[in-house]
Amino acid sequence: MTAAPLSFEILARSRAAGARVGRVTTPHGSFDTPAFMPVGTRGTVKGILPSLVAGTGAQIVLANTYHMLLRPGSELVARLGGLHAFTGWHGPILTDSGGYQAYSMADINSVTDDGVRFKSIVDGSMVDLNPERAIEVQNQLGADVIMAFDDCPPSTPSSSSPPAESTDDGAVGAVADPRLTRVHARDRAADPRAHAKRVKLANERTVRWLERCDRAHKAGGRSGEQALFGIVQGGIDLEARRWSAERICAIELPGYAIGGVAVGEGSDQIAAVVRYTAPLLPEARPRYLMGVGYERDLLAAVLAGVDMFDCVLPTRNGRNAYAFTSVGALRLRNARYSDDCLPLEPGCDCVACSGPRPESAEPGFSRAYIRHLFSAGEMLGPILVTLHNLRHFQRFMADVRACVRTDDWRGLVARWPVARAGLPAGLAGE
Amino acid sequence: MTAAPLSFEILARSRAAGARVGRVTTPHGSFDTPAFMPVGTRGTVKGILPSLVAGTGAQIVLANTYHMLLRPGSELVARLGGLHAFTGWHGPILTDSGGYQAYSMADINSVTDDGVRFKSIVDGSMVDLNPERAIEVQNQLGADVIMAFDDCPPSTPSSSSPPAESTDDGAVGAVADPRLTRVHARDRAADPRAHAKRVKLANERTVRWLERCDRAHKAGGRSGEQALFGIVQGGIDLEARRWSAERICAIELPGYAIGGVAVGEGSDQIAAVVRYTAPLLPEARPRYLMGVGYERDLLAAVLAGVDMFDCVLPTRNGRNAYAFTSVGALRLRNARYSDDCLPLEPGCDCVACSGPRPESAEPGFSRAYIRHLFSAGEMLGPILVTLHNLRHFQRFMADVRACVRTDDWRGLVARWPVARAGLPAGLAGE
Repeated sequence: MTAAPLSFEILARSRAAGARVGRVTTPHGSFDTPAFMPVGTRGTVKGILPSLVAGTGAQIVLANTYHMLLRPGSELVARLGGLHAFTGWHGPILTDSGGYQAYSMADINSVTDDGVRFKSIVDGSMVDLNPERAIEVQNQLGADVIMAFDDCPPSTPSSSSPPAESTDDGAVGAVADPRLTRVHARDRAADPRAHAKRVKLANERTVRWLERCDRAHKAGGRSGEQALFGIVQGGIDLEARRWSAERICAIELPGYAIGGVAVGEGSDQIAAVVRYTAPLLPEARPRYLMGVGYERDLLAAVLAGVDMFDCVLPTRNGRNAYAFTSVGALRLRNARYSDDCLPLEPGCDCVACSGPRPESAEPGFSRAYIRHLFSAGEMLGPILVTLHNLRHFQRFMADVRACVRTDDWRGLVARWPVARAGLPAGLAGE
Repeated sequence: MTAAPLSFEILARSRAAGARVGRVTTPHGSFDTPAFMPVGTRGTVKGILPSLVAGTGAQIVLANTYHMLLRPGSELVARLGGLHAFTGWHGPILTDSGGYQAYSMADINSVTDDGVRFKSIVDGSMVDLNPERAIEVQNQLGADVIMAFDDCPPSTPSSSSPPAESTDDGAVGAVADPRLTRVHARDRAADPRAHAKRVKLANERTVRWLERCDRAHKAGGRSGEQALFGIVQGGIDLEARRWSAERICAIELPGYAIGGVAVGEGSDQIAAVVRYTAPLLPEARPRYLMGVGYERDLLAAVLAGVDMFDCVLPTRNGRNAYAFTSVGALRLRNARYSDDCLPLEPGCDCVACSGPRPESAEPGFSRAYIRHLFSAGEMLGPILVTLHNLRHFQRFMADVRACVRTDDWRGLVARWPVARAGLPAGLAGE
């Protein structure tokens, strides 16, 4: 019997909904839940020093196993002391399993019950990823939370969504909408019956693969330091979600995730799946909704009892001059901001809006300056908007955590109108 | 009579050479001399928050008038409160006059005794720059030190150097060598007699233009807050340098610069010109050597009595994975660094080498990690090497300032072997 790699303490519960606030403790420190994790795909939250990431209030970050495996390689990261020492982020880290990117980004050679074989996007070499290898790689990377290698099927039989995109934080030139990503074009069957068959296969395979992940992790010698989370699949079919949740949660693990959400469906559908699925996961374990999302989606999921989130929205959109505010987005390339001396969001306490406190009493940066930086192609533009967006999501989550204790959800959406659609009519008092 | 916009106090002098340490005070604070100014071409030291620039020890930064004039425009910057408020750098700022870039970067339409007419690289519009307009624009930008609009001739009759490059910190993809830049290809005459004639015209014109700058600045209403520096020209012809120094310094100003150096000639020639010219400038005024340079060039110039420097080397080279150390450069893209767990320079106290002190006891970043960032095209690579390089030059200048008081120049070059060639044989004890 090894020591528990992770503990989860629930500190308070909403009386009006399934929401709870808590604290997860890992070998690299604790984080408050509900938690929003910035994405550091290649071992860096793009353009942001780890100390500045921490300064936004983030307490845990995500790294993508697929990218770190291909470059610089998980063996190298292990030799250099693991992800914490390598990247300079000394707090908790979560790695995904690499499965999702292998499916969505790679030139796939084969998918079998054993695993996935694909061509590296870095050097064209053939790479195998399967439950045992995904665990071995994550053991080498050394994150505090590691994810099961799952078979993530497309959520809908067909869709007019664009072709497969990654949910890692790549250098994509467009503003991200997570609802339009994570769609596996190659794997999408227009025929609903073929799709249903594929979803069933994926759900069954995900259970078998989780059993293999669990065995491999226990055999790998790091299960006392790294917490393996299972992933519930099932697409938008609630019965498939129930089937998956029962099988996945039958395997005792430190935490469970809801995968295959925000892969092309709308906010209402996301909320419906999450409201149905989250209560099926063990009450005493942290629940992680993968790849979500906008403020309204976060709010709906917290109210359903979800504790952890990751999303590329603050970083990827930030690099594209898209600033989140409590009342909606600013697109800083717009000429209307060229002589706007306001900060991105008046009252925001981020470095971009309020300057480098507490070291100085200097003010922050104007929309006009940030627009100038984007117009001139200056790196500081993406840096400032990313810092603001990261802080925006952390401020929002901190307010959500406070509201779990007060149940003043109408007050919350008055402060964050952008999240209003995530509040069920019952709680909105309408 | 307006208040003095700038004061210069000499605090100590070398007994062995012309070097001095001092302190320049401006309306936005003071800086220690000899001073190294990072270059923030478009109103940002590329990729680095102003608070982090200050954290490297920089006390004054340079911005390029030419670039700010074309985008976002000096009128807009003035409306938004001037460069300090606009850029978030609240310490001293120096702007060049825009003349150099107009010559070297622009599609020049005409050069006359009145000034220069060129095509904007931003929108193709026709732009006029002359002494009066250069001062007006710099008055609008509001820097603490502003530079005269000069006619900078090519330094040598002909050269095998590459065609004209800017000395602003542009997004150039190559490592910078300032000795190979600032050459005006279009303006270079292969015929030595034609070249001598052009140099003579430029020198005479620079004096006439300085008189116009001085008048315009006094009439502009900001001469009590902004210090105008004159620029001595003359290329590598020492008699021309003497002629220019006498005429330029006959106009009483708060400071004087040596221009037209490091425009294609070698370190020895730079040192020869600077050793000859610096003592011709008023002892009681700060002396500024424009666009220089490597550590050896800085040392030679300090020993000749120069007080201020600017150069794009730490920033431009940093973005290209070129890290300065006391013993020479590291080129971080080299595969030899792929599993090198050392920091860029052991013992360096920069954020990249030593982490974000004093807030934390976390270590810095390894060469292997920084190489990974460059391999993966991650912004944090340029950011970390730029931060290191900026700190490298500030640490070097701080040690140089200390040596002015002790005259232990052999000790200095023992600590900074990379600067050894800047030490004259007499001081090296050889």
